Amino acid sequence: MGIQQPTSSPTAYTPTDRTVPTRSAERASYDRELVHAILDEGYVCHLGFVREGAPVVLPTLYGRVGERLYVHGSTGSRPLRMADGADPGLAVCLTVTHVDGLVLARSAFHHSINYRSVVVHGIAHQVTDPEEKRTALDALVDHVVPGRSRDSRPADKKELAATAVIRLDLDEVSAKARTGGVNDEPEDLSLPHWAGVVPVRREYSAPLADADLAPGIGLPDYLATL
Amino acid sequence: MGIQQPTSSPTAYTPTDRTVPTRSAERASYDRELVHAILDEGYVCHLGFVREGAPVVLPTLYGRVGERLYVHGSTGSRPLRMADGADPGLAVCLTVTHVDGLVLARSAFHHSINYRSVVVHGIAHQVTDPEEKRTALDALVDHVVPGRSRDSRPADKKELAATAVIRLDLDEVSAKARTGGVNDEPEDLSLPHWAGVVPVRREYSAPLADADLAPGIGLPDYLATL
Repeated sequence: MGIQQPTSSPTAYTPTDRTVPTRSAERASYDRELVHAILDEGYVCHLGFVREGAPVVLPTLYGRVGERLYVHGSTGSRPLRMADGADPGLAVCLTVTHVDGLVLARSAFHHSINYRSVVVHGIAHQVTDPEEKRTALDALVDHVVPGRSRDSRPADKKELAATAVIRLDLDEVSAKARTGGVNDEPEDLSLPHWAGVVPVRREYSAPLADADLAPGIGLPDYLATL
Repeated sequence: MGIQQPTSSPTAYTPTDRTVPTRSAERASYDRELVHAILDEGYVCHLGFVREGAPVVLPTLYGRVGERLYVHGSTGSRPLRMADGADPGLAVCLTVTHVDGLVLARSAFHHSINYRSVVVHGIAHQVTDPEEKRTALDALVDHVVPGRSRDSRPADKKELAATAVIRLDLDEVSAKARTGGVNDEPEDLSLPHWAGVVPVRREYSAPLADADLAPGIGLPDYLATL
């Protein structure tokens, strides 16, 4: 019999062999609130799966509902077909990364990036329940622009049938972050090189309305505060 | 005997089974200039590999030198150990994605993202030649901030020994992009929902100088124009 795995706590995910990094372990966290915050700040993930023995990494949209992530796509797309409900599911690794700053040290060696990332390992399954599918699709739209799903036409039967959604439980999860300034060697501090951090962020420009907008439709509040 | 693969042309990569997408094939491109431009605009990639049969996707820095990409890390890190020169190499998928806009359609179904991405498939090998390693490390620093490698202390012997670099040839490569506005169904155009595109870009804030900066060091030109 194997060793009994501890149950995940209400506040933290349980570390596993593959969520404990081999390096910079002090940057890792299993805190649920931190993981949720990093996930909720993004909407594009990089989804990895194995196809004919080789890795594939594709950028795709995702949404979160509690302890579940959802990814959607055409019913014809490869990972979604592979995660078909009839199958045992598809082993995936879903990663979300935010770049917060460029760390320019005096030494090339200590150059780095301030970032926050979440890595989720698990088995993705196709969502077959129509109610769960609708909830997932709303979450996907609202992840990009909070409040948007209520201000758009919901998917009709044909669109729902053409959309595949896969579910990935947040179970084997870790967050990793680097924050702060440069970490130069003491003997390098007097070198004649500028050192410091250049903050990076995602910036939205003014929304560009579609030329065919129905008359009298102004910019919604949820876009003004994006 | 298998079918002879055409040789990559000077201007385009040769499509393969896994670089021809199963959907939205019209968004795919194999143009070298476009691929290089997308790669050169970024510095964080998502590197996928297979570990004990399961996919792993990690964010990491990369640099490009001609038709080669370089990724570096501690000699103790998993993918770099797995790509050790004594091995046959490590099968990887390296993906770079830029988000350019949120596409808000009147229908939930037609919501999308404007993006540009590059996906590289191949076998990564450890760089053992010291000259190539130095060139790769300079490229990694200059990819983040062009011109920075000349304004920092190069890695010394100990640092070089502690850094592993892997090389991935640009051979099996595709770019994919979505551009433009919303694609609503004609019968949805009169719906009372705002529709359009919200442009997204990466924005740098004013650099924050290290508190221990040597006296008389101003902000370098290459940071003022970042």
